[in-house]
Amino acid sequence: MKSLHTNDGAVIAPAADGGLLDRRLFLKKGLVFGTFALASDHIPADELQRTAAMLTPGAPFSGYGQPSPFEQGLLRNVAANAAVAGNGASMTPLERLAGTLTPSGLHFERHHNGVPKIDPALHRLIIHGKVAKPLSFSLERLKRYPMTSHLCVIECGGNSFSGWHKEAMQGTPGSLHGLVSCSEWTGVPLSLLLHEAEPAADADWIIAEGADAAALNISIPRAKAMDDALLALYQNGEAIRPENGYPMRLVLPGWEGVTQVKWLRRLETSDRPVMSRNETAKYTELQPDGSARQFTFSMGVKSVITAPAGGYRLTEQGYYSLSGLAWSGQGRVASVDVSADGGKTWAEAELCAPVLPKAYTRFRIPWQWQGQPATLQSRATDEHGNMQPTRARLVQERGQAGYFHYNAIISWQVEPDGYIHHIFA
Amino acid sequence: MKSLHTNDGAVIAPAADGGLLDRRLFLKKGLVFGTFALASDHIPADELQRTAAMLTPGAPFSGYGQPSPFEQGLLRNVAANAAVAGNGASMTPLERLAGTLTPSGLHFERHHNGVPKIDPALHRLIIHGKVAKPLSFSLERLKRYPMTSHLCVIECGGNSFSGWHKEAMQGTPGSLHGLVSCSEWTGVPLSLLLHEAEPAADADWIIAEGADAAALNISIPRAKAMDDALLALYQNGEAIRPENGYPMRLVLPGWEGVTQVKWLRRLETSDRPVMSRNETAKYTELQPDGSARQFTFSMGVKSVITAPAGGYRLTEQGYYSLSGLAWSGQGRVASVDVSADGGKTWAEAELCAPVLPKAYTRFRIPWQWQGQPATLQSRATDEHGNMQPTRARLVQERGQAGYFHYNAIISWQVEPDGYIHHIFA
Repeated sequence: MKSLHTNDGAVIAPAADGGLLDRRLFLKKGLVFGTFALASDHIPADELQRTAAMLTPGAPFSGYGQPSPFEQGLLRNVAANAAVAGNGASMTPLERLAGTLTPSGLHFERHHNGVPKIDPALHRLIIHGKVAKPLSFSLERLKRYPMTSHLCVIECGGNSFSGWHKEAMQGTPGSLHGLVSCSEWTGVPLSLLLHEAEPAADADWIIAEGADAAALNISIPRAKAMDDALLALYQNGEAIRPENGYPMRLVLPGWEGVTQVKWLRRLETSDRPVMSRNETAKYTELQPDGSARQFTFSMGVKSVITAPAGGYRLTEQGYYSLSGLAWSGQGRVASVDVSADGGKTWAEAELCAPVLPKAYTRFRIPWQWQGQPATLQSRATDEHGNMQPTRARLVQERGQAGYFHYNAIISWQVEPDGYIHHIFA
Repeated sequence: MKSLHTNDGAVIAPAADGGLLDRRLFLKKGLVFGTFALASDHIPADELQRTAAMLTPGAPFSGYGQPSPFEQGLLRNVAANAAVAGNGASMTPLERLAGTLTPSGLHFERHHNGVPKIDPALHRLIIHGKVAKPLSFSLERLKRYPMTSHLCVIECGGNSFSGWHKEAMQGTPGSLHGLVSCSEWTGVPLSLLLHEAEPAADADWIIAEGADAAALNISIPRAKAMDDALLALYQNGEAIRPENGYPMRLVLPGWEGVTQVKWLRRLETSDRPVMSRNETAKYTELQPDGSARQFTFSMGVKSVITAPAGGYRLTEQGYYSLSGLAWSGQGRVASVDVSADGGKTWAEAELCAPVLPKAYTRFRIPWQWQGQPATLQSRATDEHGNMQPTRARLVQERGQAGYFHYNAIISWQVEPDGYIHHIFA
């Protein structure tokens, strides 16, 4: 590894090849504290004058705030199926976000037949099937139950599906990998409601159904329903947004999105799964030997560099704070390694607190770009030792006929002209 | 204390008088798990039929989601000064929220002359005064710096000001105490930027100025600026909303809101404070002896029961999950006690994870209301042993001429007819 120099001539030992620097470089005294040197040291006189906006009173108060008009491009990336009304997805623009939360208005959507308009006063949640006491809950009564919160990721089982293609699709982090979002979900532990209905001893499955036009249904093992499953009424503090299940949805921390049924209206306990479309024809994984994996609920450990990344261009050489998101459906992120040379050498990234289980963990590492071509990669490991695989290993194990549960290392190629594109490496 | 009975006849030992039950009652097996009994055990046949919304495709995808049309009342409570454009405040509707985050659109506002419209491409942050290197930062360059996040409360120094009145003002938790909100703020540690400008040894103060029409300015001790202060660019994952400082603001975790200057444009280092209006005539506290407290930056330990609470009515007897928010400008909340009899007996509430420093901590405790009059109170204690005072003690110490830093125990009186109002107790 070559040594690097700061603007004032100090030598910096690199953390890995390709320009990666020690993750603590700019935050700890004793290291090279505060030499980013990206500011202008000439302050034009007009910058000290009052700006035009300071000369007249600004806009009045508002009941419910909206993003700045200068952020009109901050939108989900919609990919709708032209042949079926309300079928498709919209993706979170990961590259425009920072921190770990996804604003509710930008949480990804996956609907099978559109977003139903549900009057909360009329909506009921029914628990029936193999239970001693079939029950019907109004929203008003549910709000009197004890609630808890999970700050957690929901990832669509089909996120990053283009990773299974033969050639790397081009796009931004959000358009390629944005079927994942992280919110604080608050509601009633599902175990409380199920317990009250007294399920039969052999009622090992709970079949959840949504109140949308697709009547989306799916089978959930009782063990998960009695563990950390939530009947969520609130998203990031307020009532859930319509496209995310208003007035109520399931949240099953760490599991694929399709199981976390939105607009939930019915839980039917059963001694067997229902074998619905979305657990047979879809959301299953064809393997190289012709068999299919089914009921692959938990999402793997995964990470993606969100900036700098695909679809963008570096217009200047110098320091960048390389940043991204990591998560695991199994628990906490333990570490994230970053490579700038396509995986030949790795440096450990800084994890930003708090590191919560099954939630986004933001990572970052300083990187010095001096016009060199670079292949940026991130590799997450969770607290159980699960490590994000290379694409070669994932394809070797699972073939290329798949669509779901793609979690291989994601690679961004930086060209000498600063353009960045998506590659398989 | 009288024993209580569940619907199926089991005896429950109360946790305190007035109907308070053990905080773990409904969540742990071995206690009375799952006997809330608020559901209907009769499921009308029509509830099993498909609803009208299930018969036609729903609404299409959206670029940026909005709350349900059934939540149109979910708004900030605006209290504007009719005599001065853009002067006043809007309060977060605490009683309508759950969990710990405040949605960005509902974060409280306090402006002195309206919300400026700022083009981020033209905005600059200047650091000058007693520094070796005056610097000017563009937003584009700032985004290349290392960032960190603070999930923390911002509370206006004037929150709960009516507590100093002679008689209890009537209202909801939000309209009386809603000048406080909790967000994830992400940006560049202020210490990095200041260090780069090389402040003089005696530059003990940083004078921050906003780019609003009030040119709001205030003095911040250098020690805080070099500690956990943040130049925030993002709120809850996305660019800060205009009313909260777009494109950049200061975040000083735990300190009163007025110091966390919005639309930040200038940081001037100095050997003395500037003695601006908002640190002399306002945001200071007149004491009984005629002196005034000044530079009282840190907010005290505080809590408020948000449901059931003032402005609402209990329409049914039975179990309620009593819930509220606690926070401290000094660190983590260690415990919250709840009383239903105006402070004669107390029971410990459950704190919902994660408990983060200087952030909201949601608490809850089960409560059985059988038509009895009740005085609901909460009392928070932080990790340093600071305990929320009674109103009598606070008034004894600080008099009643004040406007700022009111953090006494808040009391809600439940009448036998279920109506709840605000009292001083």
